[in-house]
Amino acid sequence: SGGKLSHELITNTILPFFRNEELEKLGDAAVIKIGENRLAFSTDSYVVDPIIFPGGDIGKLAICGTVNDLSMMGAKPLYISAGIIMEEGFPVQILEQLLGSMQKMADEAGVRIVTGDTKVVPRGAVDKIFINTSGIGLVPPDIDINGDKAEPGDVVIINGPIADHGITIMAGREGLEMDLDLKTDSAPLNYLVQEILDVTKNIHVLRDPTRGGVATTLNEIASQSNVAIKLYENKVPVTNSVQSVCEILGLDPLYIANEGKCLVICPESETEKVLKAVQNNKYGRQAQVIGRVLAEPAQKVYMETLIGAERIIDMLAGEQLPRIC
Amino acid sequence: SGGKLSHELITNTILPFFRNEELEKLGDAAVIKIGENRLAFSTDSYVVDPIIFPGGDIGKLAICGTVNDLSMMGAKPLYISAGIIMEEGFPVQILEQLLGSMQKMADEAGVRIVTGDTKVVPRGAVDKIFINTSGIGLVPPDIDINGDKAEPGDVVIINGPIADHGITIMAGREGLEMDLDLKTDSAPLNYLVQEILDVTKNIHVLRDPTRGGVATTLNEIASQSNVAIKLYENKVPVTNSVQSVCEILGLDPLYIANEGKCLVICPESETEKVLKAVQNNKYGRQAQVIGRVLAEPAQKVYMETLIGAERIIDMLAGEQLPRIC
Repeated sequence: SGGKLSHELITNTILPFFRNEELEKLGDAAVIKIGENRLAFSTDSYVVDPIIFPGGDIGKLAICGTVNDLSMMGAKPLYISAGIIMEEGFPVQILEQLLGSMQKMADEAGVRIVTGDTKVVPRGAVDKIFINTSGIGLVPPDIDINGDKAEPGDVVIINGPIADHGITIMAGREGLEMDLDLKTDSAPLNYLVQEILDVTKNIHVLRDPTRGGVATTLNEIASQSNVAIKLYENKVPVTNSVQSVCEILGLDPLYIANEGKCLVICPESETEKVLKAVQNNKYGRQAQVIGRVLAEPAQKVYMETLIGAERIIDMLAGEQLPRIC
Repeated sequence: SGGKLSHELITNTILPFFRNEELEKLGDAAVIKIGENRLAFSTDSYVVDPIIFPGGDIGKLAICGTVNDLSMMGAKPLYISAGIIMEEGFPVQILEQLLGSMQKMADEAGVRIVTGDTKVVPRGAVDKIFINTSGIGLVPPDIDINGDKAEPGDVVIINGPIADHGITIMAGREGLEMDLDLKTDSAPLNYLVQEILDVTKNIHVLRDPTRGGVATTLNEIASQSNVAIKLYENKVPVTNSVQSVCEILGLDPLYIANEGKCLVICPESETEKVLKAVQNNKYGRQAQVIGRVLAEPAQKVYMETLIGAERIIDMLAGEQLPRIC
């Protein structure tokens, strides 16, 4: 679920079996070499519940998620595979709605769904439908972006308000029938990333704060880069609707999943160019500098609060929200 | 499940949404172009029940299956992704056993598992564990292999006895505690395929008869190539153990899944070279010519029986064995 336990499961149980330099980078996608080309290769399974929610569905999520994983390596996403597992008796008209969402998002992102697999399992062997997407993208020659490249002095930028996706799913699940304008932020960010790279190649880290939210993703970066990351509480954008639901349910938006957000870490000198490029994209109008990379305390994320105090933003041990994506 | 209904689901419901030339070839993998290179790209979800069985487990299947899908396009498999979805409380020692199988098979096949995703869902949302693997392989320049390339006069070769995988799973599930030497044939066939291509590039079709078995796969080839395929009943290798279980359960081995078998369709002139190359590989010792491609009756597969009669080998409408791979 993106928390500390799942991080430990991957680091302590799964990684030792498959140890190789690509996996150990723990990026959103592996970067592999084929001939003269560097390719990004990623995979993600989508198990969200409910499968349809305000602003999107599991099909939209499956395409945008993989497009974004590739984009976070600086790659141009090209090809997508789709592995669908559904329960016997799953309604064809809902399947068609999900497939329609997938194709619509693929069209918007300019990627092609070129290969697929469909398994129908007996009722009860899977809850409705799960979708796996893997993707291939081309990494331009002069790009060197990874979670271990953050440096003291860098700024941390986000392209808009956080926690919309997770809170939308959670509110739907809890039956919070409030008069709130909640919807997922799920979106393909490949053009936004390309527009950043068009103005500067001097980007250190790109990461989409999905499961576990901004807090978990920044903790991973702080750990991989062996740096501290300081967040400014008054700069982190959160909509009023999301803030309300978080207060009712006792959730911290920093730990809630996003599906159309991107953290950009770059040298301070690039701030203005990057911010302008992001704000010019339709998925980045409310972009903000939300923090800064420091040397100490290494491998920690902390928040400078509104009243000037500081508090550590740790990884959560367990899961805050299961089946959020 | 590899039957007619699942063929129709894919052709009538899923394909129309994603129409593009790669998907329409309906190969085991898509062939895409990146720079000067042709890559094969495939995906498959494994949902087999039980997850551990004589001769293998879901982890072995997941690696071999994707290695084979890539190999069937004539590609050299290089990189694999692993998407694991498991139920809360899934035992860590069994997970480790499955991961060990995956790495062992990856080592044997010379491929690297470079990217992955793990989702833990609440108990009951998935039956134990499902694994998706996607793969990337490099297609050599002078290879042109696809399901639509079978030509009248070609021979049909298989690398050994059929139905071992499906019957092993089925016997386990039915609790047939017989004194039979049953085990899955699951195996990575990439070196076997490379050894064929080392002796001749003049290969028309390669296909692994997994779900739906040899009968379904040959029907798909007959349909894509617009040819007839004639099988010789006395040439199709089946072990005595498999034959016994088929008789008890009333199953036809031609429709049962294989996980380490390869159908090779090539011009008659290549028969000896190919047969020798296959028989020299440890997964091809019992290779046989089992049939021939003819012009008429187009899009049909039929069997010349032991007594010289002929019967049509149709696609099955429904599924014979659910969750076989």
